[in-house]
Amino acid sequence: MPSNAPRDVELVIEARWILPMSDGLPTLEDHAIAIDDGRLLGPWPIGEVAQHVRPARTLRLRHHALLPGLINAHNHAGMSLMRGFADDLPLMTWLNEHIWPAEAAHVNPEFVAAGTRLACAEMIRSGTTSFADMYLAPEAVVPVVEQAGMRAQLCTPLIDFPTPWSKDFESGVRQTEALKASLGDHSLISLAFGPHAPYTVGDASLGRLREAREQLGLPIQMHVHETRDEVEQGLTQDGKRPLRRLFDAGLLGPHFQAVHMTQVDDEDLALLRETETAVIHCPQSNLKLASGFCPVDRLQKAGITVGLGTDGAASNNDLDMFDEMKTAALLAKGVSGDAAALPAMAALAMATRDSARALGMEKRRGQLREGFDADLIAVDLEALNSVPVHQPASAAVYAVQSHQVSHVWVAGCVRLEAGELVGLDHQALLHEARHYERAMRSV
Amino acid sequence: MPSNAPRDVELVIEARWILPMSDGLPTLEDHAIAIDDGRLLGPWPIGEVAQHVRPARTLRLRHHALLPGLINAHNHAGMSLMRGFADDLPLMTWLNEHIWPAEAAHVNPEFVAAGTRLACAEMIRSGTTSFADMYLAPEAVVPVVEQAGMRAQLCTPLIDFPTPWSKDFESGVRQTEALKASLGDHSLISLAFGPHAPYTVGDASLGRLREAREQLGLPIQMHVHETRDEVEQGLTQDGKRPLRRLFDAGLLGPHFQAVHMTQVDDEDLALLRETETAVIHCPQSNLKLASGFCPVDRLQKAGITVGLGTDGAASNNDLDMFDEMKTAALLAKGVSGDAAALPAMAALAMATRDSARALGMEKRRGQLREGFDADLIAVDLEALNSVPVHQPASAAVYAVQSHQVSHVWVAGCVRLEAGELVGLDHQALLHEARHYERAMRSV
Repeated sequence: MPSNAPRDVELVIEARWILPMSDGLPTLEDHAIAIDDGRLLGPWPIGEVAQHVRPARTLRLRHHALLPGLINAHNHAGMSLMRGFADDLPLMTWLNEHIWPAEAAHVNPEFVAAGTRLACAEMIRSGTTSFADMYLAPEAVVPVVEQAGMRAQLCTPLIDFPTPWSKDFESGVRQTEALKASLGDHSLISLAFGPHAPYTVGDASLGRLREAREQLGLPIQMHVHETRDEVEQGLTQDGKRPLRRLFDAGLLGPHFQAVHMTQVDDEDLALLRETETAVIHCPQSNLKLASGFCPVDRLQKAGITVGLGTDGAASNNDLDMFDEMKTAALLAKGVSGDAAALPAMAALAMATRDSARALGMEKRRGQLREGFDADLIAVDLEALNSVPVHQPASAAVYAVQSHQVSHVWVAGCVRLEAGELVGLDHQALLHEARHYERAMRSV
Repeated sequence: MPSNAPRDVELVIEARWILPMSDGLPTLEDHAIAIDDGRLLGPWPIGEVAQHVRPARTLRLRHHALLPGLINAHNHAGMSLMRGFADDLPLMTWLNEHIWPAEAAHVNPEFVAAGTRLACAEMIRSGTTSFADMYLAPEAVVPVVEQAGMRAQLCTPLIDFPTPWSKDFESGVRQTEALKASLGDHSLISLAFGPHAPYTVGDASLGRLREAREQLGLPIQMHVHETRDEVEQGLTQDGKRPLRRLFDAGLLGPHFQAVHMTQVDDEDLALLRETETAVIHCPQSNLKLASGFCPVDRLQKAGITVGLGTDGAASNNDLDMFDEMKTAALLAKGVSGDAAALPAMAALAMATRDSARALGMEKRRGQLREGFDADLIAVDLEALNSVPVHQPASAAVYAVQSHQVSHVWVAGCVRLEAGELVGLDHQALLHEARHYERAMRSV
C-alpha cells in the first residue's frame, strides 16, 4: 500500500462551518474533519476528504458549526444541587449564612456525587467537554466523571479549617498525594491543588503548598482577588496585596490558575505577566455576587492567558459556557468602554484554546487540529434566534442558546447525539434532583 | 341559575407554579387560572377551580411556571435580518459605516416585513407577547403583527433627515396621523411617536412633536442619553443636557419612554421623577456598543418606572427577554456594587408589570389577575440546567433558557403550543432568512 493511500478512520463529520480556533486557520465553510482512535485528522474541504481517509461512517451536519469542546476552567460541580438555593446576596453573607451552613447540613460524598452527575449532564448538554472542579470529596467525583466520559481537572480543597473532606491543611495535602497515587496516569482526569483563597490559607500553609507542589508537580488553582474587601484585608493583615503574598511564597507561575482577579493594579499586572500566571474569568458569578469587574481586555493586551469558567451553579446559576461567552464578550466592552474589546472570535478562543492553556492542556486540546484529542461539539445554527448567519462566530457567541448543541464527542466518543445524552439517564437525573430539592426544603 | 354557579370558560390551566407579578400575591404552588373571551379569571388553588368555573378544556402543566407574557419595551424588529451583520464596533461607527449603509442598500417594505416576521416568531418562541417597535415602514409591520397575533406599540420613525419612510420630520408626523386614522381602535396594535434621538431631532422638530402629541394623544418613545458623547455634544451645542432640552420643549411626562439613559446625573434623576417619565433599559445593547451603564438600582429606588427591552437584533444579537432579564439582574448588581440589587423577582417584574407601566398598558397587562388580558406564558422548569427548583423566580431569571417556554397565549389565543409555533410557518421563516443571508452577502 503506498504511503499516500487513504487511511481507514472511524468517523468523518462534514459540516457547514468549522471554527478550528487554531492560529492561522480562518472559519472554514463546507469542510470535514475525521475522528480515529480518539484523535482528529483534517480538516479538509468536503470534496477532498476521499483523498485522505476512508471512513466507516460519515455524519453530515448541514446547518451546523463544529467547534472544539468548551473548557469550563472553574466550577464547583457538586454545588449544582444548590442552584437557586440562596440568591441576591453579597459573597460573604452568601457563604457564611447560606452556603456553608447548607454544606454542613447536607454535603456528604453521595450529595457531591449526585450534584456532580447533574453538573456533568448539564455541561455535556451545553457543549462542555472538560472542566476544572473544586469541591469537597473529589474521590466521589472520580467515578462520576468516568461515567459521564468527560475530562476534568480536580482541584483538591485545601483550607485552614476543618471541612467534610479534611481536618486541616496538612491532611488535605496528604489526601491529595493519596488521590494522585490512586489515579495514576488517568486518561480523563488530572489533579491540581485547590487552596481556597488567600484569606483562608495562612503563611505556614502556603509554605507547605510550595513544598508539596515541588514534590508532586501539580498545578494550583485558587480564588484570588475575588473582591476589593479581600485585597483590603490582605493589606491590613499582611501589609501587602494577596497576589504579592502568593508571589513572595514562591507560588506563582504558568502552573498557577488565579480565579476571578477582579482587582488588578499595575503591580498585579506585572506579577501576572512576568510569572506567566493564568487568570480564570467568571463574569456571571462576579456580577451576581457584586464582586467587581475583571479587566479582561487589559489582561489580554498584556499577553496574560485568560480562561473562562462558570463558577458553581449556586452563584451563576447555570453551567452554560455559551451563556458565559456572551456575558464575557458583552461585559468586556462595557468595562473597557471599547465596543471592539473581546470580539466574538476572541470569546470563543477564551472558552477553548485559552482555557486549555490556562489548565496546561493546550498541546492536545482547545483546537480542532490534526493530532489533537477528538474533543469537539456541533452546534445547529439554524434556529429562529440565530438566523440569518452572517458570521458563524457571532452567531455562536451572541445569538445561540446552548440547547442548539446537537453533538458532543470527548476523546472521540460520542456523549451527546442529536441532542440526546449518551450513557447518562436524563430522566433519572431529573428524578434525583427532585429528591434533593425536597430533602433540602425539609431541613 | 344562582349567581354563584360555576361559569363556563374556554380553558383552565393548572400549573405547578404561578407567578402573578401582582402586588400582594406571592408565588403560588399548585394553582390554576382560567381564560375566557380573551381575559383571565382566577387564580385559585387547583382543588377549588370547580367552585368557580366549568372549563371546556383543562391543560395540566406539572413542571411549569405560568408568568405574564413578557413585554419587550424596545425593539427594532425589522433589523433581525441584520443579526450579526456588523459586530464589535462602537455605536457611531456601527451606525454610520455599517447599519445605515446596509439599510440604504437593502431596506424596503418587503425587507421590513420579512425581518419583523422572523422577529415575531423569535419573540413568541421565547415568551414575549408584546413589543414596542421602532423601525422604518411601520405600515408594513401592521399585517405581520396581525398574522403573528402579538401585541405591538409601533413607534413611527421621526428624524430630521430623509429615510426610506419619510423625507423629513414633518412628513413623518403627517404619516403618523394617517397611520393612526387607518389603524383606528385596533385590538392588538397601538401607535407612538418614535423621534430617533436628541442629536437627530432639532428644536423646531421638538416643537412640532409637542403640538402633534397634544393633537393625537400618543405616547413618545425616544433614544435618550444612550452614550456619554451624546450628552457632551448636547452640552456643547445647546448648553444643556439632552434630557433637560426635552423637558424645556415640554415633552417629558408619564407618556414619555426614554430608552437607554446610561447617563443620569442628579438633575436628570429629579426630572425623570418629577415628570414621571419612564425609562427603558436595554442592558445587552448598552454593553455590546460600550454605551455605558444605566443605573437601574438608583432609578428604581427613586420610584422611576424602568421597563426592559432587547433593542434590535443587530446590537444584541437576539430578542430573548429571558436572556435580557438575567443580564439586567446580574449587571444591576455589578454596577451598584450591591448583590441585593434587582433580585430575581424584580427582574421578572421589570419584564412584565414595569414594562407594561412604561408603555401605558398597566391596567390590563403585565400581571396575572382576574379581568386582565389573557397574555401569558408557561415555562417548563424541569431541565438539566434549571433543576432543582428551590425558587421558581430564581430558576426563571438565572437558569432557564427561553426554549423552555412551552406555551404562549395572547388575548387568550394560543400562539405557541408544546414548543411549536401556531399560525406561523417555522420552516418558511428559516427559508426566508437564508434568502436574505445570501442577498445581503452578494451586495
